[in-house]
Amino acid sequence: MIIEGKNPVKEALVGGVTISKLYIQKNHHDTDKIINLAKEKGVRFSIVEKSVLDKMSESGGRHQGLIAVSESFKYSSIEDIINAAREKSESLLLLILDGIEDPHNLGSIMRVAECAGVHGIVIPKRRSVSVNDTVVKVSSGASSHVKVAQVTNINDTIRALKDDFVNVYCTDMDGDNIYESRLEGDVAIVIGSEGFGVKSLTRKLCDKALSIPQYGKINSLNASVATGIVVYEVVRQRLL
Amino acid sequence: MIIEGKNPVKEALVGGVTISKLYIQKNHHDTDKIINLAKEKGVRFSIVEKSVLDKMSESGGRHQGLIAVSESFKYSSIEDIINAAREKSESLLLLILDGIEDPHNLGSIMRVAECAGVHGIVIPKRRSVSVNDTVVKVSSGASSHVKVAQVTNINDTIRALKDDFVNVYCTDMDGDNIYESRLEGDVAIVIGSEGFGVKSLTRKLCDKALSIPQYGKINSLNASVATGIVVYEVVRQRLL
Repeated sequence: MIIEGKNPVKEALVGGVTISKLYIQKNHHDTDKIINLAKEKGVRFSIVEKSVLDKMSESGGRHQGLIAVSESFKYSSIEDIINAAREKSESLLLLILDGIEDPHNLGSIMRVAECAGVHGIVIPKRRSVSVNDTVVKVSSGASSHVKVAQVTNINDTIRALKDDFVNVYCTDMDGDNIYESRLEGDVAIVIGSEGFGVKSLTRKLCDKALSIPQYGKINSLNASVATGIVVYEVVRQRLL
Repeated sequence: MIIEGKNPVKEALVGGVTISKLYIQKNHHDTDKIINLAKEKGVRFSIVEKSVLDKMSESGGRHQGLIAVSESFKYSSIEDIINAAREKSESLLLLILDGIEDPHNLGSIMRVAECAGVHGIVIPKRRSVSVNDTVVKVSSGASSHVKVAQVTNINDTIRALKDDFVNVYCTDMDGDNIYESRLEGDVAIVIGSEGFGVKSLTRKLCDKALSIPQYGKINSLNASVATGIVVYEVVRQRLL
């Protein structure tokens, strides 16, 4: 997998992503810091002509003088995610994505998850985008810090979380107004797919369905915006 | 200006956008409803081969069998926006975008504004993207319903709003925690540009700077996600 651009490469280095080689453009401004960082982290690097980077680029040349070749994305387990919350003595905040297919949406969701202090994201192995190069790029570095677990069956995961006393909520147009709902304790939030929302069996397994009040004529928020609004309502209630 | 895709075209027709001609793909599924809607709205249409639409497309062919040629976007005045709030007997909720340059961000912001019941958006005439075809496409139809006013000088607008007893807040990393702030009465929210945030003179004019608490290592929310979180906090407080 390759990581392109100043911020994504910097975040990958800082975040401890395993980088097999870093390519830095010759005579490019502002490379000293990256070189020092690479040395500090023990990452091998080469100074190369712009044309080499252009050829490697998978984004049509928007590499900003930096490309890192990394091992593929390292998935976590759900246990890793739960332990991350326990180690910080925080109530769990987990996202379960029920079939997000657009890499831009997954990247944006990882970004908002990272900002909001979400402990991890669960995605299904099938019928979902995985953490590919586009996702990493769009996540603006968040993919180096956010734990993602791939599971075979989301419904089994929800059942196991509920056995573990996690409150599992999903988002749905017909759910209870989120601003009239108490979102306490360990929380997992299920976000539906772009086209079809949360599947009906999955919805039935959840403790409650939540809706964001909407006042317009379109009434469909982008998946990452909706995720931001919901996770920040959990954050807000925890600050009370 | 051309509008492509099933939902954007449908929303343009429903929203009363002036459409000079509608092009519908021959033998495409599910066109009856659009034809009836076009007839009902008195919009001229032609049934054409897919190749005609492909040639017109400005999105690389992602027209879904429908392209509407519309008059260019009709901007509103700030008075129109304020009157829209007054007519609904609602407290004003206005967004001021201080130099958003990415059309995807403006389109996404229009979408969240429409869902949240924002009365209108103010953008500067210079150093800002205007409502172009990409913005309309990304807004998923919201551009047919959300009022946008272009102004020469955002600072003059803020001064005039304050004279009119509107509470003007901006977003800033160093601002007061939004969840500890009362956001009452007529409210205008200034969103900074992607790269530079809110300009310092503009910030000084505002009644208060607000920050979204962030817990990660990246700490920069996408402009539309941040807008969604802030406007929905105003919505939440109004529901109390």
